Amino acid sequence: MTRTIVASATREIVIGFDQPFCVIGERINPTGRKKLAAEMTAGDFSTVEKDALAQVAAGATMLDVNAGVTAVNPNETEPPLLVRTLEIVQGLVDVPLSIDSSVTAAIEAGLKVAKGRPLVNSVTGEEEKLEAILPLVKKYNVPVVAISNDETGISEDPDVRFAVAKKIVERAADYGIPAHDIVVDPLVMPIGAMGSAGQQVFRLLRRLREELKVNTTCGLSNISFGLPHRHGINAGFIPMVIGAGMTSAIMNPCRPQEMEAVRAANVLTGNDPNCSDWIMTYRDYKPGAEGGPAAAPASASGGSGRRGGREGRRRASA
Amino acid sequence: MTRTIVASATREIVIGFDQPFCVIGERINPTGRKKLAAEMTAGDFSTVEKDALAQVAAGATMLDVNAGVTAVNPNETEPPLLVRTLEIVQGLVDVPLSIDSSVTAAIEAGLKVAKGRPLVNSVTGEEEKLEAILPLVKKYNVPVVAISNDETGISEDPDVRFAVAKKIVERAADYGIPAHDIVVDPLVMPIGAMGSAGQQVFRLLRRLREELKVNTTCGLSNISFGLPHRHGINAGFIPMVIGAGMTSAIMNPCRPQEMEAVRAANVLTGNDPNCSDWIMTYRDYKPGAEGGPAAAPASASGGSGRRGGREGRRRASA
Repeated sequence: MTRTIVASATREIVIGFDQPFCVIGERINPTGRKKLAAEMTAGDFSTVEKDALAQVAAGATMLDVNAGVTAVNPNETEPPLLVRTLEIVQGLVDVPLSIDSSVTAAIEAGLKVAKGRPLVNSVTGEEEKLEAILPLVKKYNVPVVAISNDETGISEDPDVRFAVAKKIVERAADYGIPAHDIVVDPLVMPIGAMGSAGQQVFRLLRRLREELKVNTTCGLSNISFGLPHRHGINAGFIPMVIGAGMTSAIMNPCRPQEMEAVRAANVLTGNDPNCSDWIMTYRDYKPGAEGGPAAAPASASGGSGRRGGREGRRRASA
Repeated sequence: MTRTIVASATREIVIGFDQPFCVIGERINPTGRKKLAAEMTAGDFSTVEKDALAQVAAGATMLDVNAGVTAVNPNETEPPLLVRTLEIVQGLVDVPLSIDSSVTAAIEAGLKVAKGRPLVNSVTGEEEKLEAILPLVKKYNVPVVAISNDETGISEDPDVRFAVAKKIVERAADYGIPAHDIVVDPLVMPIGAMGSAGQQVFRLLRRLREELKVNTTCGLSNISFGLPHRHGINAGFIPMVIGAGMTSAIMNPCRPQEMEAVRAANVLTGNDPNCSDWIMTYRDYKPGAEGGPAAAPASASGGSGRRGGREGRRRASA
């Protein structure tokens, strides 16, 4: 059974097919968050701290940490900023971290200070990337996210994306990195722009699990980009990717609808033994707290009626 | 491609792998609804009428109609009551109907009056049942729900349940009934009582789709029996069974959370072309209308941040 082990100073987490889904909190990332970028540049980490605590409180298994505040001279500015951010986050919460940067020097600086066994996010199938990142992954003995694109871009053909993932796993093996330390990102495209995006990713996930036997992750909310009520699409996508074999996702754990989908999927895959986490979380759930665009008529017996129906009928059968 | 055709007097619906998920409204069923049973016995069909209209308004593709008000002398009392109920429902709404009874005489009486091409619900793998129901299914040229249990009960082994389904399909073929007119119910057990219930049904669904190539259905809410916040479990289960190959379910369409999961899954399987149904339904969706047990912090950029992150980073890569 594939087991990817990540750890903070005090806490070890296993990512695997027989484990609860690993939720990697995405919020500590200044890309597309101008205010956060400005704060971090000015040395203000109050939002970082708030986001770290809120995500862990909401149920994040790990936290992704990105400090890419600028595209200008990132080789010099990003390493110290990422180090500072990682130190603040690991001083505040005890979940394992994902070191997220496109700047190799920042990844290495982060690896020097991160406690436990962090995840490196990420390498791609591009030669330059492979040669920059894989030696670091080997040197520090950490797992890495492998994004299934290369110099030719992102293929719409899931079989090409599978081939890129396979190449990364093989190249990693050349460096002595085992497949269980490669967490493949099959790349999720917006379904509003590409109607086959779901089918592509489900097919790719099944092949990654059955043939490469690797753990997987994705930037989950990409799927709903451009659509109304994105959380509803995300919440439907989560059980589907988990059913197809996905074992982690980079997502916003502060969204209750998405986290509910994660917890339900854990129950349904048998990875929430005795439904303990579900029952603990929702035992005092008030039906009135939910809701939606349509009104729900009162129907107390609706849920169990069907069961009674089948069983009752069988007994009454003439 | 497997196509099960059902129809009302004026409307034809295809159940199939490349079709929107077929939602069979479960509400017109007095089992476990004492008040409804009493009303129907007394000739009061006001709740039946209300439930028919509400389910169709909520998005039901078809309606299941059951008139099993009593276990006492059902052979005489149920046929006329089922006929009356079917006539009332088909006079009110134009969706195809499912004739739901354990009483063979009631099924036949229903088949005589139902317009279009109704679904018969149901036959099992029990010899007596097969011999009673299959000749009617052949005579009236209608599709039938095949429940995967037999004289030995419901096996916990999905391979045994598959074998029962296969036997029903083969027996039907002996009567000249094609496999595309058999809609198999793999039987969903409560996950709170049997932790492997989800894995069982996912495995069975994949085999039913890939090997028997049949359409499938289930009493969906069984899965969450006995758990708190059942709608959350149901809403997670729907995308997972659809991903595993299920093409219809007997469920309560008046639950917005479950119907949202159906619509999201239709988008994600590519069976809501251009996301049209999703966009029509949720274009004016107000985020405040949803909610959950945990508070959702304001995070306008949370949804698209990850995408920007990956893309931004790739561009900024040094």
